[in-house]
Amino acid sequence: MREKGPVERAIKVIARMPGFGEKSASRLVYWLLGSGREALPDLIGSLQELSDKIKTCSLCGNFAVSDPCGICADQGRNDSVLMVVADGKDLQAIEKTGSFHGRYFILGGLLSPRLGIGPEKLRVDDLIKRLEYEPVSEIIIALSSSQEGESTAQWLCQQLSRFNKKVTRLARGLPVAASIEYLDAESLKLAIEGRKEF
Amino acid sequence: MREKGPVERAIKVIARMPGFGEKSASRLVYWLLGSGREALPDLIGSLQELSDKIKTCSLCGNFAVSDPCGICADQGRNDSVLMVVADGKDLQAIEKTGSFHGRYFILGGLLSPRLGIGPEKLRVDDLIKRLEYEPVSEIIIALSSSQEGESTAQWLCQQLSRFNKKVTRLARGLPVAASIEYLDAESLKLAIEGRKEF
Repeated sequence: MREKGPVERAIKVIARMPGFGEKSASRLVYWLLGSGREALPDLIGSLQELSDKIKTCSLCGNFAVSDPCGICADQGRNDSVLMVVADGKDLQAIEKTGSFHGRYFILGGLLSPRLGIGPEKLRVDDLIKRLEYEPVSEIIIALSSSQEGESTAQWLCQQLSRFNKKVTRLARGLPVAASIEYLDAESLKLAIEGRKEF
Repeated sequence: MREKGPVERAIKVIARMPGFGEKSASRLVYWLLGSGREALPDLIGSLQELSDKIKTCSLCGNFAVSDPCGICADQGRNDSVLMVVADGKDLQAIEKTGSFHGRYFILGGLLSPRLGIGPEKLRVDDLIKRLEYEPVSEIIIALSSSQEGESTAQWLCQQLSRFNKKVTRLARGLPVAASIEYLDAESLKLAIEGRKEF
C-alpha cells in the first residue's frame, strides 16, 4: 500500500515545468516538506499574488500590476523613442542600466525554426498598429546577438521599412552569441549609447 | 519607474530554493506568467495541498496524508523486519520494487561533516526507542553506497549492536557511489534479495 496523493500530484505538476524532470521535482517537493517547510507558505503566497495581480500591459505587452503598466503610464518618459525587446526579462535588464528613458515594446520572443516560433507568434502586428498612431521618431531594436536574435532583427527591420523611421540597433560592443539577459549592466549601457542606424 | 512588486517577490522566494539562482527563478516566473500561465493554478493548488494535508508520520517519519501513514497502519505488513532508509524519496524507490513487505524507519539523512550533519540531526534516538518496544527480529540498513551512506551505515550498526538483533545491509550488487534514489527497480530488488548480515 503506497502513499499516493498530494506528494505525487505536486511532483507531477512541477515535473512539467521547464528545467524540471521527475527526479528534480521530487527533490524539490521533499525539500518543501522537510527543511524548506517554512518556505512553503511564502512560495504559495507569492505564486497566488502573481496569479491574482499580474496583468499584461495592453500597450507594451509586459507583465505588470496595472494596465497600462508603470512605464507606459509614466508621463516623464520620451514618447519619440521606442525600444523593441524580446520579453519582460530583457526589459528588466535594460531598465536596470538606468540609461534608457523612452518607451518599450515587447515582441514576445525571437524567430526560431528550431522551436517552431514563426512571425505569427510574435507581436509584430501590434507593433505596426502602434507605430501608425504614435509619434515615434526612432525605433531601437534591442534583441540578443544570438543567431535567432540577429535574424529576428533583420526580419523586423524589413517589416518596419515602410514607416520611413529611424531604425537603430544596439551597438556591437557585446560579445557574439551573448544573451541580453545575462549581460552586465555596464556593457549593456555602452551598447545602448553606441547604437547604430540600420 | 520600474515595475516592482509581485514579480520581483516571486523571483526572490524561488531563488532561495535549492537548485535555483536569480536567473533561473526569473525564467520560471516569466514562464508561469506567459506560456505556462495555465499551469499556475495547478501549481498553487498542489502546493497548497502539500501544505494543508501532508503530515509527518510519528512512527516511520515519512511524509503522508495520515498519521500513522498508510504503510505503518497496514496490518498486512511484516512487523518483524524494519528497514532503515535515509529519507522519503528512498522509501518510495524501495516501495516501487514491490519486493519489501516489512516496516520502514526514516533516519532523516546521512552523516555528512561536509554539510554539517552530525548524529544529533538524525532520528537515531527515535529508532532506538522504537526497537525497545517493537518485536523486530531483523533491521535492514538500506542506505546509499556513497561514502556518506557507508559511514552512516557503519555508525548505525554500532549504535544498534546492544540490541543483539540481526542487522543486515543491502547486497553489494550496486555500483560504488551509486545513489538509491536513481537506481533502477530491478537492481534495487536484487540488492534487497541478496542482503548480507553485518
